[in-house]
Amino acid sequence: MPETVRHGAYRRADGRGGEAMRRRALMLGAVVAPLALPATAQAYPTRPVTLVVPFASGGPTDILARIMADALGERLGTRMVVVNRAGRIVGKYRKIHLPGRAHKETSVGWHNFEKRYFEVGDRAWPVWRTMGVNMGMMICNDRRWPEAYRVMGLQTVELIALGYNSSIANALGGEPPEIRMLHNHISMQAGAYQNATWVCGAAKSGDEEGIPLMGGSCIIAPTGQIVALASRLGPEVITAECDLGLCDFYKRTMFDFAAHRRPEHYRSIIERTGAEPPSLVDETG
Amino acid sequence: MPETVRHGAYRRADGRGGEAMRRRALMLGAVVAPLALPATAQAYPTRPVTLVVPFASGGPTDILARIMADALGERLGTRMVVVNRAGRIVGKYRKIHLPGRAHKETSVGWHNFEKRYFEVGDRAWPVWRTMGVNMGMMICNDRRWPEAYRVMGLQTVELIALGYNSSIANALGGEPPEIRMLHNHISMQAGAYQNATWVCGAAKSGDEEGIPLMGGSCIIAPTGQIVALASRLGPEVITAECDLGLCDFYKRTMFDFAAHRRPEHYRSIIERTGAEPPSLVDETG
Repeated sequence: MPETVRHGAYRRADGRGGEAMRRRALMLGAVVAPLALPATAQAYPTRPVTLVVPFASGGPTDILARIMADALGERLGTRMVVVNRAGRIVGKYRKIHLPGRAHKETSVGWHNFEKRYFEVGDRAWPVWRTMGVNMGMMICNDRRWPEAYRVMGLQTVELIALGYNSSIANALGGEPPEIRMLHNHISMQAGAYQNATWVCGAAKSGDEEGIPLMGGSCIIAPTGQIVALASRLGPEVITAECDLGLCDFYKRTMFDFAAHRRPEHYRSIIERTGAEPPSLVDETG
Repeated sequence: MPETVRHGAYRRADGRGGEAMRRRALMLGAVVAPLALPATAQAYPTRPVTLVVPFASGGPTDILARIMADALGERLGTRMVVVNRAGRIVGKYRKIHLPGRAHKETSVGWHNFEKRYFEVGDRAWPVWRTMGVNMGMMICNDRRWPEAYRVMGLQTVELIALGYNSSIANALGGEPPEIRMLHNHISMQAGAYQNATWVCGAAKSGDEEGIPLMGGSCIIAPTGQIVALASRLGPEVITAECDLGLCDFYKRTMFDFAAHRRPEHYRSIIERTGAEPPSLVDETG
């Protein structure tokens, strides 16, 4: 059971001065938790994802137990929760972007059946003000969609906590592992930069039913820089001091949304789901 | 006059087989054109940007002259045009994301007054089917906004031609040149990957009124990889063979928008311009 949990633990740095400093400096850590049990004990493609902030009065073990009990009750939802320092659940998020298919479509590679087993989350990326930071969550495939970051950016998010368990290879072939990792990181980097937020991506490594997972846990600054990166596929804790002043800087300048966004030109983003061919065609060339 | 033109020349590779190959293989080149004339002759912050496809019957010089004549007539628009092989203007695009301010607000650094001199473009990123590719355009600051790429992605864009003239430094200080370049590249890389398109970014280098420009011209694949990159700040042509099959692959799988997008959860992207504080606040932590 514990192997299904990815911890994204974040703690505030203490003893660094007054309120301003407390607001500006967070210590943020991502823990990579590889699978330890045999693959046969797992339910692919995924299990609940739990985010733990281990500052409760009862200590980390108590919190973990509480979360797990809750998680077991909703096993079929891909879900993350935020627990505050008092050990109370502040908010929940259910995954919106479900990759894969509901039915087998090819005989190539393996299949991701998230669309068969899960329902699309009912609530678009809420952001909570808790523990001195504006915090939001995304799950796995969500991180590849700029809309997810933007919906949180429009709520002044400062820290996005994200868990993912993506495979090293593409089932349909053709993508070397380093390209898979590039996709993983550039999506989070652009999301962080373009929304002036920290992003903490906690990966699962190990394998699920024989499929190796990519790892690559990272902490990304609002500059788009990867400031902490897991160095191996085993268990590892990475940390970074997160200056929330960087969020402020970009939210006031390059990404001052009120000054620079042009929603009147973005309408097709919600009016259209799938892509449609260009309406303007020139065949004389 | 010619120093104000950034060329993003793209040509199809020939002699490589039948129709399928012609559709799949394009040679795409970005030309960096640094300023050669004294800074005093320039009108900061920007000038019209022209994209030339030098395959017209009249030859490149003729086309250039034609474009320049047109450009001079609309000097106050930040504008790009696509010219097809027949030398005909297929489409125009006017910049939508105008950075900077309309009025002087601080005494720090220099100012970008695009909001004073330019009007926001009237048409959201059209895509044209021309010369065997679905092609769109963006200009400079547009490249930092994921909405711009997405609006074109929703029109099955396969090649985005982009010109930019960003400074090496941030007028407000604090960003080293390599971070500025990171912003430049991760925005284009994520835009390319998340919309399954090639992106060709042609930079201006040299300086404008004493402000050095960053350069960094690049050609980016739908994998998000930078497959060609300018190696200096002087004049340079970079080229890449662009396999449009890569667009098809991602448009059918990870970014099969019809299967995976959830516009019902994206509404705030157009319903809101500026960011608003989180509605959910927990102060018990």
